[in-house]
Amino acid sequence: MRTSPSVHPRPHPDAPVRLAPGPEFDLIRRFLAGQAQGEREDVRVGPGDDCAVVAGNGIALSSDMSVEGVHFRRDWLAPEEIGWRAAAAALSDLAAVAARPIGILVSLAAPAGDAGDFAAAVMAGCRAAVEEAGGALLGGDLTRSPGPLVVDVTVVGEAPRPVLRSGARPGQEVWVTGELGGAAACVEALLAERAPQPSARERFAHPVPRVREAQWLAAHGVPTAMVDLSDGLVGDAGHLAAASGVAVMLVPELIPVHPAARERSRVRSLRRALGGGEDYELCFTAPVGAVPPLVDGFARAFGVRLTCVGKLGGGDGVWFVDAEGRRRPTGVAAWQHFGRGDA
Amino acid sequence: MRTSPSVHPRPHPDAPVRLAPGPEFDLIRRFLAGQAQGEREDVRVGPGDDCAVVAGNGIALSSDMSVEGVHFRRDWLAPEEIGWRAAAAALSDLAAVAARPIGILVSLAAPAGDAGDFAAAVMAGCRAAVEEAGGALLGGDLTRSPGPLVVDVTVVGEAPRPVLRSGARPGQEVWVTGELGGAAACVEALLAERAPQPSARERFAHPVPRVREAQWLAAHGVPTAMVDLSDGLVGDAGHLAAASGVAVMLVPELIPVHPAARERSRVRSLRRALGGGEDYELCFTAPVGAVPPLVDGFARAFGVRLTCVGKLGGGDGVWFVDAEGRRRPTGVAAWQHFGRGDA
Repeated sequence: MRTSPSVHPRPHPDAPVRLAPGPEFDLIRRFLAGQAQGEREDVRVGPGDDCAVVAGNGIALSSDMSVEGVHFRRDWLAPEEIGWRAAAAALSDLAAVAARPIGILVSLAAPAGDAGDFAAAVMAGCRAAVEEAGGALLGGDLTRSPGPLVVDVTVVGEAPRPVLRSGARPGQEVWVTGELGGAAACVEALLAERAPQPSARERFAHPVPRVREAQWLAAHGVPTAMVDLSDGLVGDAGHLAAASGVAVMLVPELIPVHPAARERSRVRSLRRALGGGEDYELCFTAPVGAVPPLVDGFARAFGVRLTCVGKLGGGDGVWFVDAEGRRRPTGVAAWQHFGRGDA
Repeated sequence: MRTSPSVHPRPHPDAPVRLAPGPEFDLIRRFLAGQAQGEREDVRVGPGDDCAVVAGNGIALSSDMSVEGVHFRRDWLAPEEIGWRAAAAALSDLAAVAARPIGILVSLAAPAGDAGDFAAAVMAGCRAAVEEAGGALLGGDLTRSPGPLVVDVTVVGEAPRPVLRSGARPGQEVWVTGELGGAAACVEALLAERAPQPSARERFAHPVPRVREAQWLAAHGVPTAMVDLSDGLVGDAGHLAAASGVAVMLVPELIPVHPAARERSRVRSLRRALGGGEDYELCFTAPVGAVPPLVDGFARAFGVRLTCVGKLGGGDGVWFVDAEGRRRPTGVAAWQHFGRGDA
């Protein structure tokens, strides 16, 4: 860290956040309670000033907004889970480029009645997610909302060599981490007012972004392109296809469907696994033969399996492919916030 | 920029953003239309991937959320003005640490009916503000809102030597840029259903963050501490006082009240100037004698005046001080989102 006459020295690690008195700032102090300040080399200025200042070789940034009534319902989730999910969804974008998390900024709009224990619990959930991923709470904003609770999380990481969506080439393989459709199975149950299976609820309420898994894969030189699965495999692989100028050809029999998402109807199971969002697994591409030698080591390291789900070809879009290489439409639409009926 | 087998080369500057088809992504393409990609040295990865990636020696970050019905009303502002204000408020935090803007991420929650021309106009306003300040739109999120329009702007800048709130020392002078109370005068008029004075409306609808002014002051080695005025001088100087462990002693006769905020009643004028938020001027501290030689050059460069409004003493808080050095309370409260009545 450089110093100059206009720079105050780094605060002591245990220094409290020094804001003026007032109930709004009391709540901010509560958000930050117990978080050591000044102990990270990659955080030059932590929360409590006009800006946080971070350092690194390539700073990766992404924002993800969660809105009550759209992304979550209060009767479905505890406040800590609302915060965890919001932060995990954003951290998943860091995983998608294989960045190392530094921290998050959280903007919270809360109805006046929630600006106490409820808001503190939401922020505790955000902090738990980012601390689990190796980052810290760097700052944010707190405001009143006349209606829904809104949580916008901006993630900050270091990515000297980001893995982009655009590096995939025809002939390469398509892989996914973990199992798909668990979160969708939970939402389906909740919407039908059935109790979700515990493993499905866990996938929905407590998703684990594949932050360390992505760094491991990148350190092994594997992914040529990568994307995280927030809107479902068909939708997100569609972005990878568009960015790389390739066609993604999925083999339906290879899709790893989460146990809680499996049904007698193979079509319904697949629809959950391919169209259901919010699994926060990774989809990546790799040269033929690059991944198989690493599958066992990956499973040992993370308890997560890697599955080859198809190949890349010339053209564009996302397709099902049969044993003879014939393409057919998947029949699965990606989640869209503004469908043709809305806009 | 480093390259490795897992890194795709930087895209061509004129390359479009490559996302999958769909109405949500059509709107995102519209947000980004006409913005050249890949032409900034400090942006390694622009919008359209899972993360943006920026580079610099110390990356300054801050988020600022604007909520319909709390920060703005639709009948008061055009959609471009809603976007400009939201981005300007966030950019003002970069000014407060004397950072050079790189760009913004914008998360937008919009009712379904606004997810067309209205949202595009809000984003155009955000882009105009950041481009005026020398930065670019780096990314963001777009989601549906069941109620209010919500715009959360995260600013990203380079700050090798950030000016913090904590560097002020007793005996130093307190200065402000520009004139205070114009935005408050506009809001007062609008709430009373009177037409605001044009100069007051301009201050409210089109605030200009003091981004270049702050860099100029820092380049001249002036500010020992700095804060931007979003919640009013008394409130924001209170943060500087708390962070630096000093008392801010304002001389009421020296406060530069915006012409549109002046009234016969000196007390009312001062209340607007000291308690009214959203002027987005700067308050900074400097050693005695450091600023006066620069006042004319600053005014020539920016058309903005610098005014000494008081001094720093031992103790804490923000006070009025008389010619004999006696302190008395200002009687002005800072804006609080969650007052004692709410929380």
